Amino acid sequence: MDILLNIKVDKLTMKSDTSVRHCFGTRGLPVPPCPLRTFHGVLVNQPIPTRSQELRSTIHPDGELILSLDDVPVPEPAAGEVLLRVLAAPVNPTDLGLLLGPADLAAARQEEVAGRTVLRAPVPRQRMAGLRQRWGVPLSVGIEGAGVVVAAGAGAESLLGRTVAGMADGMYNRYRLMRARDCLVLPGGTDARDGASAFVNPLTALGMVETMRREGHSALVHTAAASNVGRMLQRLCQRDGVPVVHIVRSATQAQALRDAGADHVCDSSADGFREALQEALDATGATLAFDAVGGALTGQVLAAMEAVAGRKLAAYDRYGSSTPKHVYVYGTLDVRPLEIPRSVGLAWSAAGWLMPRFLDRIGEAATQALHRRVVDELGTTFRSDYGQLVSLADLLNPELLKRMAERKTGAKVLVEPQR
Amino acid sequence: MDILLNIKVDKLTMKSDTSVRHCFGTRGLPVPPCPLRTFHGVLVNQPIPTRSQELRSTIHPDGELILSLDDVPVPEPAAGEVLLRVLAAPVNPTDLGLLLGPADLAAARQEEVAGRTVLRAPVPRQRMAGLRQRWGVPLSVGIEGAGVVVAAGAGAESLLGRTVAGMADGMYNRYRLMRARDCLVLPGGTDARDGASAFVNPLTALGMVETMRREGHSALVHTAAASNVGRMLQRLCQRDGVPVVHIVRSATQAQALRDAGADHVCDSSADGFREALQEALDATGATLAFDAVGGALTGQVLAAMEAVAGRKLAAYDRYGSSTPKHVYVYGTLDVRPLEIPRSVGLAWSAAGWLMPRFLDRIGEAATQALHRRVVDELGTTFRSDYGQLVSLADLLNPELLKRMAERKTGAKVLVEPQR
Repeated sequence: MDILLNIKVDKLTMKSDTSVRHCFGTRGLPVPPCPLRTFHGVLVNQPIPTRSQELRSTIHPDGELILSLDDVPVPEPAAGEVLLRVLAAPVNPTDLGLLLGPADLAAARQEEVAGRTVLRAPVPRQRMAGLRQRWGVPLSVGIEGAGVVVAAGAGAESLLGRTVAGMADGMYNRYRLMRARDCLVLPGGTDARDGASAFVNPLTALGMVETMRREGHSALVHTAAASNVGRMLQRLCQRDGVPVVHIVRSATQAQALRDAGADHVCDSSADGFREALQEALDATGATLAFDAVGGALTGQVLAAMEAVAGRKLAAYDRYGSSTPKHVYVYGTLDVRPLEIPRSVGLAWSAAGWLMPRFLDRIGEAATQALHRRVVDELGTTFRSDYGQLVSLADLLNPELLKRMAERKTGAKVLVEPQR
Repeated sequence: MDILLNIKVDKLTMKSDTSVRHCFGTRGLPVPPCPLRTFHGVLVNQPIPTRSQELRSTIHPDGELILSLDDVPVPEPAAGEVLLRVLAAPVNPTDLGLLLGPADLAAARQEEVAGRTVLRAPVPRQRMAGLRQRWGVPLSVGIEGAGVVVAAGAGAESLLGRTVAGMADGMYNRYRLMRARDCLVLPGGTDARDGASAFVNPLTALGMVETMRREGHSALVHTAAASNVGRMLQRLCQRDGVPVVHIVRSATQAQALRDAGADHVCDSSADGFREALQEALDATGATLAFDAVGGALTGQVLAAMEAVAGRKLAAYDRYGSSTPKHVYVYGTLDVRPLEIPRSVGLAWSAAGWLMPRFLDRIGEAATQALHRRVVDELGTTFRSDYGQLVSLADLLNPELLKRMAERKTGAKVLVEPQR
């Protein structure tokens, strides 16, 4: 329920060691500048503190991961910048990778160090050399989030009080400085929770469909299809009429996708997976896959595409079919090496895929168009589901970290830094 | 020694059940049309027979490979076609693949069947399904070769008597019909042996360098670099000033390449291969590889490229470097699945590479330019070396087949169908 409030603010009486830069309303409506404003919503008139807490991940050269909540200054926005009071930030697989590195969580323990709580976990010795550039460097974590703009530099004043989403490292912080042009302004009334995952998954799903169109394919294969991004892709492709072969790892996940309206779902844990996959590939004509898993699955998908293409050859060809078959590997659910058998023929390709690099390639205008679609369909196509809401301090809890590291479907965590 | 002969031919008196279409000279000089001609070289005035012998490879549905020398008609060239008396045809790895399939040569045996010699070898049962399109189909083998044009259809008369090279399945035949436009006319005096391998290896080596230039790389990695195509690539790149990292499988091969003038040679069988490879990649700036091997090596090359690129990053990046790293897999010396470890980062790609499909992509004019260069440097850059000269009948010898199947460096075989 929205309540229309008429509040006359003569003087802000809050005590703080920092000046009150602006008072502001949640739910996306601008309040600034004080002292007088009519607005919808709840007045949240906390002052902006001078210090904040930021979650940092450090790998020490002696082979230890340390997660800590560090006391950091709240910066003043310069021209073109805004200060975001971060209200919600998801833990994506990419965040987990940066947060935990290859640490052994079974041996993780929480400790008090100089009055601060930290999490310590050993890093296997053989993994240390590959992390040399991380040694001793405290990394800010949390690649996206949403919150309210509570201060703005010159030229960015129009964002004051707006609920915005942003993508930039270090969202596991109570306050995050952002470039104004990187902020995605959410419609008035949007809950920050609903906007927290407006970048990584929506732009990944849109990027897959956009890649498919730009590279001359007409259907998609998606692995780990029961994930948040997988269900998002299913809604997007259903809406856009793009045939998708969804590959999942259990009968339950398969049923959930079918219940959501998916036509072609293949369960890699089931007998006859290979035949079912070939049948779905034949029915959809899919020759492009986005693979979040890796390991043997990557090659299984390519080999199945080639088997389908090969059946249509008029005569034997030593090189196999000339139908181009491509798989983009964008996730690491299986950390083992990708395996590509020679039964894929010769007209195959595989590549790493990274959404931000894809956006760089398509350019500013095309990216903006994708952003607009995300905002338009944030509550429908691009909604995210979370299994748990946690505080910054919860991210130092070994039990929570272990659960997150299992990367189970449906267990996605949303961090609320103001808790 | 060339001898100038003045021969007046009034009448050809050879008995044959076919008409003598033309008399002709070897070594590339045109003799036709009879009756009068001054020419260099040896007059080889055999008639064109009506029947020829062709080597064929058949996989029978009951799980047996049969190689046979079949009696086949010698066709009459139609308009735009020529008849080639095949003088020399190499056994390339791709020919071996078609010739032998996955047959078990340890159990191969030569037999007489209805007065003909055939070679029989069992095909492992689990490999049969993938060969369904070959079942019972006699395949003509030998993808390239050289010989003399002994008959020509309308519009192709200018090729009569010329020594030409050609690429088309079925060169393991005494006579092969060719489209005139597919013939590469060799300079007068070229021995057919020197022109026999004018397509596969030269165009593969040129295709690698051309691909490098078109895709924005400035150096190459080549595996199985002591092969015929590897030594050709070394000469080509030395001539063109292209830095190459040569990966070989033994100290002897490494020394041979160094003796030929190669700067960067890495022996994958040596201790410290990984470090040596990284050093060579760093020195050359190579970010493109052509891999004839596969298996684990494909991923090792990409991972080494990423290690070199990663060392130059100013700060840790969870996604690794953004330097594009690419490997084209064009051979199958290791039949196991390609393995690509996750240490390659995300800016990697891998793909199958097939020379004829590459030529299709670059188009007719660019292909013609490559052909011209092959002809110009046939005796130097693009020369091939053979370990053994054999007859068509020798290809039914189990011992020879076993030796060829080992694909040892220096053991390349040249078939001379007129033997």
